[in-house]
Amino acid sequence: MIMERPLDALNNAKNKRVLLELKNGRQLVGVLKAFDIHINVVLEDAEELVNGEVKRKLNTLFIRGDTIILISPNSD
Amino acid sequence: MIMERPLDALNNAKNKRVLLELKNGRQLVGVLKAFDIHINVVLEDAEELVNGEVKRKLNTLFIRGDTIILISPNSD
Amino acid sequence: MIMERPLDALNNAKNKRVLLELKNGRQLVGVLKAFDIHINVVLEDAEELVNGEVKRKLNTLFIRGDTIILISPNSD
Amino acid sequence: MIMERPLDALNNAKNKRVLLELKNGRQLVGVLKAFDIHINVVLEDAEELVNGEVKRKLNTLFIRGDTIILISPNSD
Amino acid sequence: MIMERPLDALNNAKNKRVLLELKNGRQLVGVLKAFDIHINVVLEDAEELVNGEVKRKLNTLFIRGDTIILISPNSD
Amino acid sequence: MIMERPLDALNNAKNKRVLLELKNGRQLVGVLKAFDIHINVVLEDAEELVNGEVKRKLNTLFIRGDTIILISPNSD
Amino acid sequence: MIMERPLDALNNAKNKRVLLELKNGRQLVGVLKAFDIHINVVLEDAEELVNGEVKRKLNTLFIRGDTIILISPNSD
Repeated sequence: MIMERPLDALNNAKNKRVLLELKNGRQLVGVLKAFDIHINVVLEDAEELVNGEVKRKLNTLFIRGDTIILISPNSD
Repeated sequence: MIMERPLDALNNAKNKRVLLELKNGRQLVGVLKAFDIHINVVLEDAEELVNGEVKRKLNTLFIRGDTIILISPNSD
Repeated sequence: MIMERPLDALNNAKNKRVLLELKNGRQLVGVLKAFDIHINVVLEDAEELVNGEVKRKLNTLFIRGDTIILISPNSD
Repeated sequence: MIMERPLDALNNAKNKRVLLELKNGRQLVGVLKAFDIHINVVLEDAEELVNGEVKRKLNTLFIRGDTIILISPNSD
Repeated sequence: MIMERPLDALNNAKNKRVLLELKNGRQLVGVLKAFDIHINVVLEDAEELVNGEVKRKLNTLFIRGDTIILISPNSD
Repeated sequence: MIMERPLDALNNAKNKRVLLELKNGRQLVGVLKAFDIHINVVLEDAEELVNGEVKRKLNTLFIRGDTIILISPNSD
Repeated sequence: MIMERPLDALNNAKNKRVLLELKNGRQLVGVLKAFDIHINVVLEDAEELVNGEVKRKLNTLFIRGDTIILISPNSD
């Protein structure tokens, strides 16, 4: 797995399930479909988690990069 | 549906109903008429939701991009 | 009404009454006289609203774009 | 009075008394002597108002643009 | 005293005592030695004020521009 | 160890364990795999610490630079 | 000591002990090893202070510029 720049880690996670944590404390999981240099992100099959439980399903989701704290690709 | 960059997801949602969540916790729904790279957005037939209920109708609405957390196109 | 970019919606609202909502929760109404790409805005015959009631009149008003959440042109 | 861009409103207010409201809730009045595209502003004969009363006099005052919500020229 | 742009006011205040107010509510006084377009500032013989009393002396002080609300040159 | 610019310190820490502190008060440790000029960072074998105890393991982690306060390379 | 621009003050402080105050209220002291135009800073032999007492030692420390309020070089 090649990773020289941080965005390479997002590229490696494309079409895989990722966990997003937002500045307002929310957690989202979904399949990473697209991202750009602002870390604007599109998830599919997205779900909002509260205490690890699915709170609601959101299908396709555009998330503005400046609200994101971290993105954690799953370990598969 | 082609989606290589995050803004493609917004382009695919043009003229469809979308849900917006703002940094101040508010939810808006409306027909996505326009957006730009700052994620400035124009909605038509916009409504503000509180607990899933329509609180007020706002017709055309310009929303400044830096107040937006996420945009969720409807799944149709 | 042509609208390809979000600022077109503001252009269509020029010289009409608009409602502004600011990040500090305040509401302003007035006639939209000018705006720029930062969404800096000038209103004339501006009034501050509290709970829908006019709290004070402010005549000409320059509002810095980064304090604005949304701009709602009236539907006439 | 010509006003095509928002900064024209500030240009029209030069050497006149203006009211500034800052993001921390403070109000300043003074004679507008200079401004730039960041909305950095210089006031002379500046006073800080609390509940409409003069709290202190500050003479010349440089105010950083990103702390400003609005600038209201007097209506003369 | 020439002042066409806001930074001219800071230039006129060079080597004079100024009052700085920061976004966290603190007040600093000191001799203005340098500034740049970001309003990064260097003070010498700097003191932090609390309720108008000197709380501590800080000698040379570099202050990052984005923490500054206003700079008030003394009126001499 | 050569260090002329701040990013040199991060370069020297590549492939070593580092401690990150975020603006929301959280602490993360992990192996620094990549960073860029925005201080976007990728950690591997990442763990979130609460009071010095491991709260959860997160494997690969992309962290947006603007949420980071400091990065402390270990002293080996 | 030459100082025409604010960064000259930081240049004069290189390899000397400095005090940093961060936006979250924390104080750090350490030897200034590097800085850049964003005021990203590297300290060595860094310590976090609470009420003037050393709370913990952190060795090398990269601090992101946008979290810094001020930098105070020691007066030697």
